[in-house]
Amino acid sequence: MAIYQHILIAADFSQHNQQVLQRAHQLAQQHDATLSICHVIEDYPITDFAYEPMIGVDLDMRDSMLQSAKSQIAKLAQQLTIGTDNQWVEFGSTRHDIVRIADENNVDLIVIGSHGRHGIQLLLGSTANAVLHHAHCDVLAVRLQDN
Amino acid sequence: MAIYQHILIAADFSQHNQQVLQRAHQLAQQHDATLSICHVIEDYPITDFAYEPMIGVDLDMRDSMLQSAKSQIAKLAQQLTIGTDNQWVEFGSTRHDIVRIADENNVDLIVIGSHGRHGIQLLLGSTANAVLHHAHCDVLAVRLQDN
Repeated sequence: MAIYQHILIAADFSQHNQQVLQRAHQLAQQHDATLSICHVIEDYPITDFAYEPMIGVDLDMRDSMLQSAKSQIAKLAQQLTIGTDNQWVEFGSTRHDIVRIADENNVDLIVIGSHGRHGIQLLLGSTANAVLHHAHCDVLAVRLQDN
Repeated sequence: MAIYQHILIAADFSQHNQQVLQRAHQLAQQHDATLSICHVIEDYPITDFAYEPMIGVDLDMRDSMLQSAKSQIAKLAQQLTIGTDNQWVEFGSTRHDIVRIADENNVDLIVIGSHGRHGIQLLLGSTANAVLHHAHCDVLAVRLQDN
């Protein structure tokens, strides 16, 4: 019996992303699992809403960010032969929306990159950490060789 | 090529431990990897050293805890046919010593149980969280069904 049937990559666009993609791809092959990919753009308000005329710019900027992220995810997905139905790019809260996407699609393993963190970075936490705490399925943190 | 060659179980003795053991065992079989097991007893001073006569009791208590933990780990190891050379039970700091044992034995995947945490528990962190931050290899957090 396959241990994992649906593996979700929580991708970022760091230079180390390839390590996460490669590991998830190997695991999906080994477990004969479906592979999906998602990217959540943390939803901070970009402009100060006291300046009403900025709202238009804000919306344009959000749309531009979303299109850029979708295009990058599409390239990564193509590299891993992941179809369009298994790609999700959204604005939202990384910790909650990665877990929600996993839940909604019966994902049983989330694969995410993990950077070494020390001092204040450790206190501030990380996406991997947040996903680990909130996920309802297993989480594989791939150690990125950045330190 | 096998993705993981040496998988280390960071065991605790909770009722959910079997989920972690089973997952690690399945993965080790699937990856044809060596399987090891460790348990680190968090090293708090048990007694107040202002009371010198207590030191003897403290040492006895530590020894008794160590023996009990070794015996429990030996049972789990036997269940998974892990030899005595691949079992480690120590007093120390869970976050540092699990990572040290992994480093010293060329472990490339640590498997650890992860409890859902909320509120103050989230702030206090968890062993899985600490290991995730400090490990130099990949970490698989197995979601325990305790909430």
